[in-house]
Amino acid sequence: MGKKRLVSGIQPTGRMHLGNYLGAIQNWVSLQDDYESFFMIVDLHALTSVYEDPSQLRKSKRELAIDLLASGVDPEKACLFYQSEVVEHAELHLYLSMVTPLSWLERVPTYKGKIAELKEKDLHTYGFLGYPVLQAADILLYQGDVVPVGKDQLPHLELARQIVRRFNHLYKTDFPEADESLTHFPLLPGLDGRKMSKSYKNTIPLSSTPEEITALVLKMTTDPQRVRRNDPGNPEVCSVFSYHKLFNTEYSLKKIDAQCRAGSIGCVDCKQQCAALIVDKLATFREKRAYFEANPDIVDAVLDRGAKRASEVAKDTMKCVKKVIGL
Amino acid sequence: MGKKRLVSGIQPTGRMHLGNYLGAIQNWVSLQDDYESFFMIVDLHALTSVYEDPSQLRKSKRELAIDLLASGVDPEKACLFYQSEVVEHAELHLYLSMVTPLSWLERVPTYKGKIAELKEKDLHTYGFLGYPVLQAADILLYQGDVVPVGKDQLPHLELARQIVRRFNHLYKTDFPEADESLTHFPLLPGLDGRKMSKSYKNTIPLSSTPEEITALVLKMTTDPQRVRRNDPGNPEVCSVFSYHKLFNTEYSLKKIDAQCRAGSIGCVDCKQQCAALIVDKLATFREKRAYFEANPDIVDAVLDRGAKRASEVAKDTMKCVKKVIGL
Repeated sequence: MGKKRLVSGIQPTGRMHLGNYLGAIQNWVSLQDDYESFFMIVDLHALTSVYEDPSQLRKSKRELAIDLLASGVDPEKACLFYQSEVVEHAELHLYLSMVTPLSWLERVPTYKGKIAELKEKDLHTYGFLGYPVLQAADILLYQGDVVPVGKDQLPHLELARQIVRRFNHLYKTDFPEADESLTHFPLLPGLDGRKMSKSYKNTIPLSSTPEEITALVLKMTTDPQRVRRNDPGNPEVCSVFSYHKLFNTEYSLKKIDAQCRAGSIGCVDCKQQCAALIVDKLATFREKRAYFEANPDIVDAVLDRGAKRASEVAKDTMKCVKKVIGL
Repeated sequence: MGKKRLVSGIQPTGRMHLGNYLGAIQNWVSLQDDYESFFMIVDLHALTSVYEDPSQLRKSKRELAIDLLASGVDPEKACLFYQSEVVEHAELHLYLSMVTPLSWLERVPTYKGKIAELKEKDLHTYGFLGYPVLQAADILLYQGDVVPVGKDQLPHLELARQIVRRFNHLYKTDFPEADESLTHFPLLPGLDGRKMSKSYKNTIPLSSTPEEITALVLKMTTDPQRVRRNDPGNPEVCSVFSYHKLFNTEYSLKKIDAQCRAGSIGCVDCKQQCAALIVDKLATFREKRAYFEANPDIVDAVLDRGAKRASEVAKDTMKCVKKVIGL
């Protein structure tokens, strides 16, 4: 008791990569000590955009759960579950839908952008328009005090708060409006120098073997001005150097910086060192991942227990919600 | 087993009246022998339009349940329950929302009409737009074969079928598309000669006492051409005569017709006879209503049992739904 409640969701949209690991996932791991945390794998949100072909969803969810556990999400500390296993998400979504003006949803800055961005998918559906209502339900259901968000998600959180305010106003109650915990993620370049992202196909998947990691790092773009091995390089524009900055010791970092500028270390050598650092960084992850893959019952039990605990809290909230509405 | 499934809902929107009784309610009573019936009191649908002030909803639901039981809905034959008690309605609504194009909902003929008609209410909400999705869920949840509808509700049923077809197509499955059972309700004039309707304030509430019924019938409009007691009247344009047609014997009907045309019976006498017929028609209803009012535990038990039975069926459907989607 006494700990504030934190609510956060992550979409199962394929294999997690190093960028996710250093971003959202490690953030969860660091937050679970300070908050009573509800970490959900939001398969229903995923479904709003993959509804036409959800054939990969079951596998993606499972892999994500394993990735999260292998990364250090601790079921003794945090509640980890699939959103679709807690039916109250859908129930609260329906109640909130009734108090949510259509115009609020049509005005969400990302709404039209997302439709244009994913134009190979038909997102002109009732469910996709209601995405922010479902998010509001996700938060309100656990009466979350805090939601970790990146800057780009702030408008969604603000809308969720607006919906809760309207609900509180109409039914004379005082459910909490969650605060944001603004999170600055280290910007991790992908293999091609752009932001690491599944849609750019430039990622280092978390489940890669050491050999795969090395092979991927060797493909990474470096200083384009450095053509021959002995040319002096500029570490500031090199993706590989960004990785050294994140994973190497200060001493080695200085050494590589100097060697690169002097042209005394080749890119291949530098990449081999970099790959070794990543392989090392993910050693525990790989070990734990292998463990959870070999023990599916343990993963099942964790998710089951998570859903049960989440359901308890969700049912309590729904009891209040129905009472204040007057059903 | 072997019986077809019938699904029907009725909104708790205030006191039921004689028009409802002769229409939807008696229809339910006559259908419950032939079908495995799911009769739901659709409080969630009601909420889409009364969400701003649902203070009367709890009472209306309860009164409606009592009216239905007193009218002869038999919990041994049919499953009677509150929609909000079966959480799977909300769950299936969410899944169907994802496959429902926005344009289908915006195009429903009654959508804009209803918003204009109820212009004192703010119905520009996400939930109100989704009303037909919730109806589709109501039917699909029980895999209904048949839905009794009036002509005006046919477009809603057609949309529900369209949504099921799209669901079946996307997920390669074959949930039933419900057939309509077109119902022709006797047109019952209200006290003012227009259709009996709560919004016209021209009703005879079912829970009226015999004295109240008589007082109401005495206020009923008759042939406006008949000014003096001895003027010959025209039964064809008289609301009271419509009631005689529904409730009186053929013999008495002919007699009143002749007396009216001859000016030999006064309107007050004719109305007294009419009131007596209505009082008589509702005698069993009143008796049973008093019984259920005096035994709230019995009503609770019926609704509870209904919700449990409905939940069983609903859970089975949701298991299939989630499986075919691939959650």
